Amino acid sequence: MINIQPISNIIGVLLILVGSLQLLCIPFGMLDEYRDINALLYSGFLTIGVGFLFWIYKFKSSASITKKEGYLIVALGWFFMSFFSALPYKFSSLEIGYADSIFESISGLTTTGATIFSDIESLPRALLTWRSLSQWIGGMGIIVLTVAIFPLLGIGGIELFVAEAPGPTSDKIHPRIQETAKRLWLIYVALTAFLFLILFALGMTGFDAINHALTTMATGGFSTKNNSIAYFTSPAIQYVILLFMFLAGTNYTVIYFGLRGKFKNVWGSEEFRVYLFFILALILSVGLIIHFNYAIPLEEAFRSAAFQIVSIITTTGYITADYTQWGVGITMLIFVLLFIGANAGSTSGGIKIIRHLVLFKNSLLEFKRLIHPRAMIRIKINKQLVDGKIITHVLVFLLLYLLLFVFSSITLCGLGIDFETALGASATSLGNVGPAIGKVGPVDNFGWFPPSVKYFLSFIMLLGRLELFTILILFTPYFWKRV
Amino acid sequence: MINIQPISNIIGVLLILVGSLQLLCIPFGMLDEYRDINALLYSGFLTIGVGFLFWIYKFKSSASITKKEGYLIVALGWFFMSFFSALPYKFSSLEIGYADSIFESISGLTTTGATIFSDIESLPRALLTWRSLSQWIGGMGIIVLTVAIFPLLGIGGIELFVAEAPGPTSDKIHPRIQETAKRLWLIYVALTAFLFLILFALGMTGFDAINHALTTMATGGFSTKNNSIAYFTSPAIQYVILLFMFLAGTNYTVIYFGLRGKFKNVWGSEEFRVYLFFILALILSVGLIIHFNYAIPLEEAFRSAAFQIVSIITTTGYITADYTQWGVGITMLIFVLLFIGANAGSTSGGIKIIRHLVLFKNSLLEFKRLIHPRAMIRIKINKQLVDGKIITHVLVFLLLYLLLFVFSSITLCGLGIDFETALGASATSLGNVGPAIGKVGPVDNFGWFPPSVKYFLSFIMLLGRLELFTILILFTPYFWKRV
Repeated sequence: MINIQPISNIIGVLLILVGSLQLLCIPFGMLDEYRDINALLYSGFLTIGVGFLFWIYKFKSSASITKKEGYLIVALGWFFMSFFSALPYKFSSLEIGYADSIFESISGLTTTGATIFSDIESLPRALLTWRSLSQWIGGMGIIVLTVAIFPLLGIGGIELFVAEAPGPTSDKIHPRIQETAKRLWLIYVALTAFLFLILFALGMTGFDAINHALTTMATGGFSTKNNSIAYFTSPAIQYVILLFMFLAGTNYTVIYFGLRGKFKNVWGSEEFRVYLFFILALILSVGLIIHFNYAIPLEEAFRSAAFQIVSIITTTGYITADYTQWGVGITMLIFVLLFIGANAGSTSGGIKIIRHLVLFKNSLLEFKRLIHPRAMIRIKINKQLVDGKIITHVLVFLLLYLLLFVFSSITLCGLGIDFETALGASATSLGNVGPAIGKVGPVDNFGWFPPSVKYFLSFIMLLGRLELFTILILFTPYFWKRV
Repeated sequence: MINIQPISNIIGVLLILVGSLQLLCIPFGMLDEYRDINALLYSGFLTIGVGFLFWIYKFKSSASITKKEGYLIVALGWFFMSFFSALPYKFSSLEIGYADSIFESISGLTTTGATIFSDIESLPRALLTWRSLSQWIGGMGIIVLTVAIFPLLGIGGIELFVAEAPGPTSDKIHPRIQETAKRLWLIYVALTAFLFLILFALGMTGFDAINHALTTMATGGFSTKNNSIAYFTSPAIQYVILLFMFLAGTNYTVIYFGLRGKFKNVWGSEEFRVYLFFILALILSVGLIIHFNYAIPLEEAFRSAAFQIVSIITTTGYITADYTQWGVGITMLIFVLLFIGANAGSTSGGIKIIRHLVLFKNSLLEFKRLIHPRAMIRIKINKQLVDGKIITHVLVFLLLYLLLFVFSSITLCGLGIDFETALGASATSLGNVGPAIGKVGPVDNFGWFPPSVKYFLSFIMLLGRLELFTILILFTPYFWKRV
């Protein structure tokens, strides 16, 4: 039996948080004579008010949460947050439609970073701050989901993290996991603050430094500049953001070990090693190709290649160069990179390295199984045997992911979008990346899509962000059957 | 230890067969004053000669075949057959390059049907006959592989056929399987002869009727006409070919039961039922769409939709209409259909319905597993439980398939092919279909590709035709390790 009360309570808390953070953006309005701060004021109080109604509903403090309630909290929580995060756009003087407001809101909360705005620099400062902050909240939400909620629901594969990660020990949320979540949040907040200071020291305005610190750590990619990071021509700024994108794509447990000096544990994470070497190999190849093919100076070629590759793999989506100008081979490569993702347990979206690792190792072993059909052959991650059920789960995830990608591409084509754009928009939305190829390339925006496409892609972004199963399971008969 | 002798013997027999069939095409030269029959004469005798040398090598009649030798027979057998099947093109007066000859030969033997010729009607009749016959040999080869060799090697999933299919009982080829193979060949030959008679009776010339009978039953798709089946405007001919394409995509065991009147067994095949209803649903949707959107008369709209859909799903590749003119939505649909394939145990290529069925059922169950993590939940096909190992094998196959598709697309883009064409050519080659989208659409040909692309796609066609594992396993260390 599903108990509505804890669901309602938690959604209430989430909305009060969202509303308060909207009010927190108002001071930034002083940068442009408080343009449109009414939008945030109304939206903030409305959201807090509705949140309070949810929170107060049959209030009882210590209700424990079952699995099905967990799914509903995640799905409905994200749904309500998306709706109320869209209000500031709708309430503003910018005359934005409903589809646009919802798209921008979900693109923010899911840390995707695709935008419907063509002239970002003309937006009110307070609203821009809310736009960046919504990504940061989304990132925070994903950390708690991955550490505390997904393991309870049996998805996301925390079992595959570094060996010392705290796993779920029962079907109830364990207090130790709450501790872990707090510790990881602290790292998230501290890294954001640290990045802000560096960017400010390197000459960014305080406003730009805050916004970019928020959206870098969320692997979100919303920028306050029309040209994204290309606006900041200082190589130092680009290198710093590059490094922090890489960090933001790293498993937070690995970062935690790194900060405590336990480098053996850092190196013990196979996923981290693959992440690092895969990126290095790509930078080397693409850097050399564009250096020789397009006569870009060596340092700039490698910086440019590294920035674009790390931005796409971590699903951040900042850009400093238009990679579609680097030939059809690299365009195709970038398209494929939309399907990679960084580490599990980070704020990055998409499939993520760990799943590719399981796929790769298991595929190799399938050949061994063909020659020795009777042998029990299982794969190891971090030197530990991986349970067959987890392998099946990962393979199913991968295939569902590709199926949804195909479904989304067909739908977009059916709605009249051209072939390449449909594939690009689907891949980038499902992977929560941001820029893509075709008519939604790095220098384009999503504003020209018809409302139907915007609503559809918003749904796809949510699906991807919540690891597919969380949303899809609500459409199965199993979920609604009484036990 | 790998024993070269049985491998050499079997390749010898295959080459003698190929050479003899090349000679058999010579009489068709009388239709155009024996143009270029020398090419077939030289090639035929050379192939028989080399085959004889292979066959005679350390001849010993009753050597049994191990697993590794089985893999080598399949891979090397197909390789040598491809090489010697290419000779007639190269020896002809048409001045065809090596890459073109190899491409056309492999496109034939793999029953793909992609062609490098732009003016097919101008080709010598004897050579055209060889072109069609090579597809028919390929189809015959696939039947024996699926029934007799793949089960021995543990791939292809004969376990998933209708319940009564004879499975492998030991690691040696069982005499009963040889019996089955013979019986299925008989059906293959009989259906081809039957189709020839009908096409002839409906007004095709004897030459056209033979050629189209050969390439229809092989699900190959080589035509003797530049406009493929669109040349034959008679609806009766189109309906007959449509029906036989559907039959050729059906599992031969199912056809066998159908011919013996055991319709309960036919209906008992879940794969067949899905195949039938999936096609009917697609015909209904696409037929209505093109009827209303493009004002095509109702009968013609449904005939046209049915023909293109059945042709693509069975991986035949004939066409009667340019589907890329039906809007971007249907173009995308056709692109996705390149990944479907018909029944296992037929001559069709690609992924095939049974694997999609396993994927679909297993994905649905994964949601059930999430809610009941401790329950043992397994899928059923044809009312029988499917072993976990088979499920993993199918999932690995699907992911490897998609991985190869991605690898092929990147490679083609790297070789300078545009995005849409690269995706289309990769999908159609791996799935052994023939036509695709982009610049290799239904009214285009593959002649304009540079030689590097032709060699590469030839390799991809072989990979797809031999169910990936057969070729890929040769690149693993496991295979070459002495036990």
